[in-house]
Amino acid sequence: MRIICKKSNLVKGVSIVSKAVPSKTTMPILECILIDATTDVIKLTANDMELGIETTIDGIIDSRGIIALNAKIFSEIVRKLPDNDVVIETESDNQAIITCEKAKFNIAAQSGDDFSYLPAIEREDFITISEFTLKEVVRQTIFSIADNDTNKMMTGELFEIDNDVLRVVSLDGHRISIRKIELKDAYQPRKVIVPGKTLQEISKIIGGEADAEVEISFTKNHIVFEFDRTLVVSRLIEGEYFRIDQMLSSDYETRVHVNKKELLDCIDRATLLIKEGDKKPIIIDIKNESMELKIKSQIGSMDELIFCTKDGKDLMIGFNPKFLIDALRVIEDEEVDLYFMNAKAPCFIKDENQSYIYLILPVNFNAAV
Amino acid sequence: MRIICKKSNLVKGVSIVSKAVPSKTTMPILECILIDATTDVIKLTANDMELGIETTIDGIIDSRGIIALNAKIFSEIVRKLPDNDVVIETESDNQAIITCEKAKFNIAAQSGDDFSYLPAIEREDFITISEFTLKEVVRQTIFSIADNDTNKMMTGELFEIDNDVLRVVSLDGHRISIRKIELKDAYQPRKVIVPGKTLQEISKIIGGEADAEVEISFTKNHIVFEFDRTLVVSRLIEGEYFRIDQMLSSDYETRVHVNKKELLDCIDRATLLIKEGDKKPIIIDIKNESMELKIKSQIGSMDELIFCTKDGKDLMIGFNPKFLIDALRVIEDEEVDLYFMNAKAPCFIKDENQSYIYLILPVNFNAAV
Repeated sequence: MRIICKKSNLVKGVSIVSKAVPSKTTMPILECILIDATTDVIKLTANDMELGIETTIDGIIDSRGIIALNAKIFSEIVRKLPDNDVVIETESDNQAIITCEKAKFNIAAQSGDDFSYLPAIEREDFITISEFTLKEVVRQTIFSIADNDTNKMMTGELFEIDNDVLRVVSLDGHRISIRKIELKDAYQPRKVIVPGKTLQEISKIIGGEADAEVEISFTKNHIVFEFDRTLVVSRLIEGEYFRIDQMLSSDYETRVHVNKKELLDCIDRATLLIKEGDKKPIIIDIKNESMELKIKSQIGSMDELIFCTKDGKDLMIGFNPKFLIDALRVIEDEEVDLYFMNAKAPCFIKDENQSYIYLILPVNFNAAV
Repeated sequence: MRIICKKSNLVKGVSIVSKAVPSKTTMPILECILIDATTDVIKLTANDMELGIETTIDGIIDSRGIIALNAKIFSEIVRKLPDNDVVIETESDNQAIITCEKAKFNIAAQSGDDFSYLPAIEREDFITISEFTLKEVVRQTIFSIADNDTNKMMTGELFEIDNDVLRVVSLDGHRISIRKIELKDAYQPRKVIVPGKTLQEISKIIGGEADAEVEISFTKNHIVFEFDRTLVVSRLIEGEYFRIDQMLSSDYETRVHVNKKELLDCIDRATLLIKEGDKKPIIIDIKNESMELKIKSQIGSMDELIFCTKDGKDLMIGFNPKFLIDALRVIEDEEVDLYFMNAKAPCFIKDENQSYIYLILPVNFNAAV
């Protein structure tokens, strides 16, 4: 094999596929990027068996071939080369020579035959959304997936398509995040659970332009994202997702309309008094036209008054401040509405169209006052 | 005590003195910042017994007093307050109330009496240099201090004043870094060893403007830096510094004149092939009008040719690449001169006026070729 690519193209391609290289593995071949120049295009692939990424880059194929190179070493070398044409050559299956200007690297390689290729996917139907929208819905929900594997389903997000609506849901047992977006076309109903890690990596790769599109297609066990010159294939999480609709209610006893930044900054300040691992709640005392936020810990205490508009009853309720912060941080609206039933029922932060719904369970605060 | 300061003034002052708060200590009072409003100015002080920093900030003193607050908590609170006037009040020696707009914090405090004040320094003579110059000479030498305490002297830098010249020296047993600058006035000869940590912290505090000045004065055991509204007092390291002049020689058998960036980039690339802790040398083969740089490790090998101008003999010599990188990175010149005697004698990188001299010991490379 002998190929010639611009350094910038190589850097971009390697950086994209590297997202599918596992940080820890006992199989050296999984730590590799496959360079496939057996056809008319130069294709880079990485695959950790859950998530696989493939991208094509511009370049000249002098002689066809295929080789697997350690991703970490290859990407570091490529990044530090002068900004010029890079030649990658192989003489055998276990040696690659990378040359750029007067610099010449000789590194160990592995045969392409040992590499586990992406599963061949027959794409039937696909939905189309903009890179921007995909990136946004992931950012606005990903924080409430569970980060450990005790319940596999909670480590993923529900992607639910119904007609021309895509609903994305994540939950971790203490809270639920829901984003609903309208699609340009109508599609067959479909429900899949996408691994959180896949969505995190995809968010890093896609540019986020509003006019660039991602095509998302499904097979029985996989979801496929296709954009630009890149293909991302991920396994789905098996099983039936939690029935969240029965947890959502539109009744309320107290509704508060408040400036989002003011509320967020105030809760953010209050968390200074909580050491990592400490479970002190923030107490919100809703009275007349104000919310008083109070927190008390070993370090000290804070209270702050925020003006708001209130419908309904007065209420005193406690929350894990982190959960409020996570939700408020991703909401773009300047003003938000909070809906409460009582001190033991979940709080809902949602907009009028319910394009976002954040459900947060309260905590008991008797001990803290 | 009751004082009122702008948030921005407080943030700036706290961030300056925090540099003297030890990250680990068994004495809670050392983790504090002292707020002293017993006179007409508001003075913040922190002191870890080796290094003490004091700064004054603008503000109104409503009622005089003095209090010590945990530096970490105080600085986090101040930083997260709204951008407005901050009131700090004490009712007793062990409680402080910090108010800003509608936010009110109540935190534990300690009596100012327990605080260890900065040593009273009688400043007799002082030298004056610009913030820019001080920051530069530290940056250009600090990397070659030793980072462990086995030889206390190596953890500091020699500041040597002779007439109108300040010479700053650091060494770690493998290399020596020397920077020489001209002062505006002439001073009494003086030699002190300043702790590296002091210089690192000072570099973070001073702005680095060319027209802002730092006054440096000395006592038997201390060095004092005074600038802006800040006073930094540091203990000196006791003892007589290494006699470095006898290690410097101006003889050479080979002199190489080379583009600095090209050489630095090439060595930087080569280090990719060295894993942390691995002691592979980079081998420089100087022949005719070129240097060939070669490295070989378990990961692979690299070689690269760099054109240069050479005086004297051909030479093959090996170095720890990190030492070359450290020195080349801080040199501002586009072209550098390297002076060699033989493969076992130190290499000198220096300019014509010897405003900088970097001495680097070679390593044995027989095993590596």
